[in-house]
Amino acid sequence: MRYELYYWPSIQGRGEFVRLALEAAGADYLDVARLPARAGMGMPALARLQGGATTLHPPFAPPFLKAGKRVIGQTANILLYLGPRLGLAPRDESEALWAHQLQLTIADLIGEAHDTHHPIAGSLYYEDQKPEARRRAAVFTAERLPKFLGYFESVLARNPRRGGHAVGGRLSYVDLSLFQTIAGLSYAFPRAMARRRNQCRRLAALHDRVAALPRIAAYLASPRRLPPCDADLFRHYPELDA
Amino acid sequence: MRYELYYWPSIQGRGEFVRLALEAAGADYLDVARLPARAGMGMPALARLQGGATTLHPPFAPPFLKAGKRVIGQTANILLYLGPRLGLAPRDESEALWAHQLQLTIADLIGEAHDTHHPIAGSLYYEDQKPEARRRAAVFTAERLPKFLGYFESVLARNPRRGGHAVGGRLSYVDLSLFQTIAGLSYAFPRAMARRRNQCRRLAALHDRVAALPRIAAYLASPRRLPPCDADLFRHYPELDA
Repeated sequence: MRYELYYWPSIQGRGEFVRLALEAAGADYLDVARLPARAGMGMPALARLQGGATTLHPPFAPPFLKAGKRVIGQTANILLYLGPRLGLAPRDESEALWAHQLQLTIADLIGEAHDTHHPIAGSLYYEDQKPEARRRAAVFTAERLPKFLGYFESVLARNPRRGGHAVGGRLSYVDLSLFQTIAGLSYAFPRAMARRRNQCRRLAALHDRVAALPRIAAYLASPRRLPPCDADLFRHYPELDA
Repeated sequence: MRYELYYWPSIQGRGEFVRLALEAAGADYLDVARLPARAGMGMPALARLQGGATTLHPPFAPPFLKAGKRVIGQTANILLYLGPRLGLAPRDESEALWAHQLQLTIADLIGEAHDTHHPIAGSLYYEDQKPEARRRAAVFTAERLPKFLGYFESVLARNPRRGGHAVGGRLSYVDLSLFQTIAGLSYAFPRAMARRRNQCRRLAALHDRVAALPRIAAYLASPRRLPPCDADLFRHYPELDA
């Protein structure tokens, strides 16, 4: 199966959680919006599928995945679908639900991280909501970030299986998503993250272990991995990282 | 199976999406935090299960569901689990994923509705973030609300099966959640919703049909249905509904 990922072509964003799963599994996939429009790909193909009157299951927003005739939206839902097919989810139903629950909690965290720089509206520039962003970011770094990090650290500590994975004894999409979350938070909030370093040792170790997986290391060194930038979900504005 | 729902005892909130599914199916359940602490229930029971060192799969936040030995968190994940067991989800895998995708998009919408009154921090009072709330609510009612409503209206219009359901030809948890969403938005933003009435006829009809289901009608008329209030997810502040 050749999967087709549809996501903004110039940012990591939420699509990166899907890219990492496809890359870690060595899956055959096209990153459609990054391919040429003259070849029937690119942003026109994304707009066609999302807005098309014939799309039976239209996604509200990217990312979405085309798998054969299926079009699947919502990042966590895409990973729910891909997980067992890519060998990146536990087979046991309870464990699979637990993995999905963690992914949804990661989604909550990254939504809050995003809203630090866009507390008023995604349709306005950061520059148009800077005072509000400062207020929201201060609460985020003081209260919410430690709460989420402490939660995920305790999830790693409670896993009865060895190996430092989030769920069970094998790599899952949750590990990949935690890697991306720690990488993004460390980019956006280096000072706030440094203050928490001692409370996040298991998360830091997991981040480093995922980054060193041969397929992930090759991906991160390739042009397929987009650099962080200030149009992305995670943004580094020093004034928000007090 | 007697299910145990753990959620704040005085608000509808996110727990209401689970309550509606349990009620619509006539399921046997306890709304634990609303029962007396002296009977081993109430908020102490919620805190014990959420924070307990022996909870293998600790939820980040309420609502969560205890089903036998399982503890399942995240509203959409709880419905993913309950759906097939309560006869409130399609059996076909593609349709089940589609239902879940819609539920996750509803979660995004209600998160944005919540943040209209708490754009800076959930830990601060509304009164401490009123100017920011006005700005965020203005964008929400002008841009985001119409976008989400138009999306869900088109989902209803595209369903090839008759009956006005969101997914397939039968009642699912998505219909119940759309009912709750329309009810909450109509309570919080009566003026903004009235302006959109003609663009949301299918959603309005679905809302009314769900409200008239015998078990749901009985539930809504019972003391089990908590009234809306200004400590809830959906809040009516006239100044945010310009």
